[in-house]
Amino acid sequence: MAFRKKIDPSLKTNNDTGFGSNPGSYGGRFINKDGSFNLRREGISFLNRFSVYQRMLTMPRWKFITVIIVFYFAINLLFTIAYLITGTTQLQGLLATTPWATFKEIFFFSTQTFTTVGYGRINPVGDGANFIASIEALSGFLSFAIATGLIYGRFGKPRSYLAFSDYALISPYKNITALMFRFATYKDNHTLTNVEIKVNIALRVDEEGEPVYKFYDLTLERNKVDSLPMNWTVVHAIDDKSPLMGFTMDDIIAADVELYVLITAFDDVYSSPVLQRTSYTYQEMKFNAKFVPMYRESEDGRTTVLELHKLNDIAEVRV
Amino acid sequence: MAFRKKIDPSLKTNNDTGFGSNPGSYGGRFINKDGSFNLRREGISFLNRFSVYQRMLTMPRWKFITVIIVFYFAINLLFTIAYLITGTTQLQGLLATTPWATFKEIFFFSTQTFTTVGYGRINPVGDGANFIASIEALSGFLSFAIATGLIYGRFGKPRSYLAFSDYALISPYKNITALMFRFATYKDNHTLTNVEIKVNIALRVDEEGEPVYKFYDLTLERNKVDSLPMNWTVVHAIDDKSPLMGFTMDDIIAADVELYVLITAFDDVYSSPVLQRTSYTYQEMKFNAKFVPMYRESEDGRTTVLELHKLNDIAEVRV
Amino acid sequence: MAFRKKIDPSLKTNNDTGFGSNPGSYGGRFINKDGSFNLRREGISFLNRFSVYQRMLTMPRWKFITVIIVFYFAINLLFTIAYLITGTTQLQGLLATTPWATFKEIFFFSTQTFTTVGYGRINPVGDGANFIASIEALSGFLSFAIATGLIYGRFGKPRSYLAFSDYALISPYKNITALMFRFATYKDNHTLTNVEIKVNIALRVDEEGEPVYKFYDLTLERNKVDSLPMNWTVVHAIDDKSPLMGFTMDDIIAADVELYVLITAFDDVYSSPVLQRTSYTYQEMKFNAKFVPMYRESEDGRTTVLELHKLNDIAEVRV
Amino acid sequence: MAFRKKIDPSLKTNNDTGFGSNPGSYGGRFINKDGSFNLRREGISFLNRFSVYQRMLTMPRWKFITVIIVFYFAINLLFTIAYLITGTTQLQGLLATTPWATFKEIFFFSTQTFTTVGYGRINPVGDGANFIASIEALSGFLSFAIATGLIYGRFGKPRSYLAFSDYALISPYKNITALMFRFATYKDNHTLTNVEIKVNIALRVDEEGEPVYKFYDLTLERNKVDSLPMNWTVVHAIDDKSPLMGFTMDDIIAADVELYVLITAFDDVYSSPVLQRTSYTYQEMKFNAKFVPMYRESEDGRTTVLELHKLNDIAEVRV
Repeated sequence: MAFRKKIDPSLKTNNDTGFGSNPGSYGGRFINKDGSFNLRREGISFLNRFSVYQRMLTMPRWKFITVIIVFYFAINLLFTIAYLITGTTQLQGLLATTPWATFKEIFFFSTQTFTTVGYGRINPVGDGANFIASIEALSGFLSFAIATGLIYGRFGKPRSYLAFSDYALISPYKNITALMFRFATYKDNHTLTNVEIKVNIALRVDEEGEPVYKFYDLTLERNKVDSLPMNWTVVHAIDDKSPLMGFTMDDIIAADVELYVLITAFDDVYSSPVLQRTSYTYQEMKFNAKFVPMYRESEDGRTTVLELHKLNDIAEVRV
Repeated sequence: MAFRKKIDPSLKTNNDTGFGSNPGSYGGRFINKDGSFNLRREGISFLNRFSVYQRMLTMPRWKFITVIIVFYFAINLLFTIAYLITGTTQLQGLLATTPWATFKEIFFFSTQTFTTVGYGRINPVGDGANFIASIEALSGFLSFAIATGLIYGRFGKPRSYLAFSDYALISPYKNITALMFRFATYKDNHTLTNVEIKVNIALRVDEEGEPVYKFYDLTLERNKVDSLPMNWTVVHAIDDKSPLMGFTMDDIIAADVELYVLITAFDDVYSSPVLQRTSYTYQEMKFNAKFVPMYRESEDGRTTVLELHKLNDIAEVRV
Repeated sequence: MAFRKKIDPSLKTNNDTGFGSNPGSYGGRFINKDGSFNLRREGISFLNRFSVYQRMLTMPRWKFITVIIVFYFAINLLFTIAYLITGTTQLQGLLATTPWATFKEIFFFSTQTFTTVGYGRINPVGDGANFIASIEALSGFLSFAIATGLIYGRFGKPRSYLAFSDYALISPYKNITALMFRFATYKDNHTLTNVEIKVNIALRVDEEGEPVYKFYDLTLERNKVDSLPMNWTVVHAIDDKSPLMGFTMDDIIAADVELYVLITAFDDVYSSPVLQRTSYTYQEMKFNAKFVPMYRESEDGRTTVLELHKLNDIAEVRV
Repeated sequence: MAFRKKIDPSLKTNNDTGFGSNPGSYGGRFINKDGSFNLRREGISFLNRFSVYQRMLTMPRWKFITVIIVFYFAINLLFTIAYLITGTTQLQGLLATTPWATFKEIFFFSTQTFTTVGYGRINPVGDGANFIASIEALSGFLSFAIATGLIYGRFGKPRSYLAFSDYALISPYKNITALMFRFATYKDNHTLTNVEIKVNIALRVDEEGEPVYKFYDLTLERNKVDSLPMNWTVVHAIDDKSPLMGFTMDDIIAADVELYVLITAFDDVYSSPVLQRTSYTYQEMKFNAKFVPMYRESEDGRTTVLELHKLNDIAEVRV
């Protein structure tokens, strides 16, 4: 593969995204659209690299609920077996006459103990069953505490709630050429404050015949706003200071271009800093297109309307 | 509508409040007194733009309690119906003899299960009722966890607890003319630390015959204090560097002036950053008035008294 | 009262502590030793200026426990009365035969419902008692949620855990005269990070015959350390740049001197910023004394020992 | 002990680590590998310097669970004794006929009350037992709240999850000599943002014949990265500006060298700042070795693989 363009060697490279200079034929993207890194860890045990809390915090809601229900049935099954091993004579009030009915009755007794409902029709009289019941009630108690922690952790986890345009555009802009993408807040009554953005670019360049990835900071027209109630179009001017100066679409493909976007802000719903990463690869770039406005005034002229369905609406720019 | 005043074109505009340059006949205010943005979102489903947690966190207390009580009765009604469908023979200990009495008795049994009280006079004996009860107890368990999360979230949500003067004043001040407003902390034992303030102004100006909104940063006499135990009068000097230089009240009305106020601080009750937005439109500005002091010493000279009822007390300034 | 010393008028005053320039005969201190402000609010209703959550968070432990116990008995008393009004026939299983015994039995039934223990010997059979019990169980449920929130809030509240020397000292120090005080962390395994300190001084000065309080920033030998595992002696050099230049003890008394100390840091036990205020009035200043070291090596030379009982140990400095 | 090397006296010392200049024969390390300080507090009561919450938050999981279980049995034992003192006639439904069986039965009744299970077979009828039960249920209630707080506190405690190389290396690096160590994030999907590092060095030097410890800031090739998804090799160039200029291994031993490392970052799993301290003593330094790369591409070239087992892999550098 040929490298069409030479990049001005005086431009300062960096490695702010924390990747080493990757040699050669690297094919994938470094940062996924959702902001996660395309990275795998080896040489460390599963338990050491796995964080239950983080996983429970970030999994989808339906998965979270499934985990809770499965856990609930599994732990009650376990205690049911323990009661059965201890013997059914240690429990008072059982009505069942068959083994399967007894199993079910004890299972439900177990749920009544675990959830601390404790109707009491069935109740432990033997030491063994009493001991198991006291441990089960404590387990229920603590499981509840853990569930509360997890649920609050999920609720209270600050999120940026930003939607990004699918494409980054390269087109004429105010007498120059610029690279642009945009994003918007999509939750009602959600305003980010002190929003800062940093964009880095990875380019595959030819170094003494070898392909090497280099990283550059992209200068932005604006990299900070006080308030972000609506949308923001991020603009990088492709001028002499830009590593993309003179690039055609073919050059961009040849250079395996990837943009790394890092946005930090303060969220006052959670009174917490939030951050969002995303990326644009060369497949997600378009030439000679510009974004159309995505807001309008309401009919009565009293409210601004953010038109989120227009986030990806672009218009051709005649060159 | 005529634009009486020209603004010095060398003054730098910005868009720190995140609004685009709005053309024309825009009539409403951008930021409401309570700091929320006058903004509506379109083109996104209700579920995607609605945040239950945020809503539960910010709704008034009486509404929050109502939601909880309605939820409590609704979910118990649902489980009551489930028990009824399963059949009343699956429950032991019912005393009722009429359908309506049975319904009520099962409803109350349901509340005893949901809250995990579980008196046990009525208790499930059939598999169906047992299963529903085990699910209901789990639901109660988890609802409690959610309630705990929400209640803690509401308690723990940092707030700035600032009261602002109703009006911004424009009047002579130390040899110049200044725009002023003031605010005060109104909670006992509440001191904000590292308080910073930023004020932007939106002005409707005439650009090639078309009315356009422009945004300027207002330079403040002081934009940071270490501690804010009492009140603070914010002062913007209307001098050559000010976009308001030479404005009369009529100019201010014609320019549809709106001040955007953003205050950030650290709150040590919550050990968290807090922020507060508010705004002043031209209807909330007065000429030739000044604020009277809103604190005094106590009778024994040992304590400072912050007189919050004087927050809006002004005196005429003779020009 | 005479003002012995004139302060260099070129020194910049400030009002970083958020107090206005207080005229005259002001006698008390502005900031108390514990960092609270000597301030009272007027002209606002008790409910608006009182924050239950903040109060519950900051009250001493024994008070907090008392409030919980009193609340527990009060709410159960309330529900007991409700059950009594509904009529004792609505409850099944009562053993009592006298009014007082019935009252007690219902009170304990109420506690069993509120805490969701629900033994079930006594249980509601009438609609009224059933309804009250369902509301009481919900109240218990929610009270528990609130208690959890409050207890976590108290636990999780970041504190600086700093102890300050009782006195500030003014004495010769490295060829100059300096004002010094010191503080130390006193909790085991407690290290503050990125600790910054700011010291302001309030002085009563003579302005056209009228006594007026002025505020100055004190320049410190060092105002930031990366880590504070032990103690820190804060040093302000009394040189030409100091408002205290040339002050004798009598001048200090006449000027009604008060130092305002504000310390901010990051605490990694709570992963949160913390801050601490305190003050020194002229009554808490001593001349010609210096602090003696408050740490030593352990006998085996392997550990540093912070001697907190020496925090206030001073030695005379011969002038 | 001789001090081989003189350090350039123009180099600025500091005391950013918060230790005083320790004279003499000091033998241990100041900061332990795990980042804690080698420090003991004296002259303050155990209760004042001990923080239950901090201890419960940071103890290993198995210890935490043990504490909970021990507490559970201890408090139930306590209440059992209280019930026994009140008299077994105050409880209804006991089946036991021997003192030991009665003790066990009441103990299990106590656990049923504490966990609010309340089966009800055994239930209090006397005033004394009723009162104790109402207090026990409240205690259970509150213990649960405390457990929830502690468990959430443990879950929600932000941690840096960084692994450090065992050794710091001193070897030729890009035409100069450099001191290097490295660290890596080891949790899946864990990326630190805005990572800053500060390295200080403690050296024992000869001051008028007396050994004294001095502290210097080490200039780093890079002291900040935007994102840290993988690993970072920290490099200090040993040039004229370095206090280590010209040091041999013997000099380093003689100077009792200790590096203090402080890393601060933002963690977006917890939306919180995190920090990590560690240290390297002269025993943990090696000459003429360099780190081998610890990442590679996956077989399909689409993913970067972080090889955590290579964290300490070094190669000899021929000089």
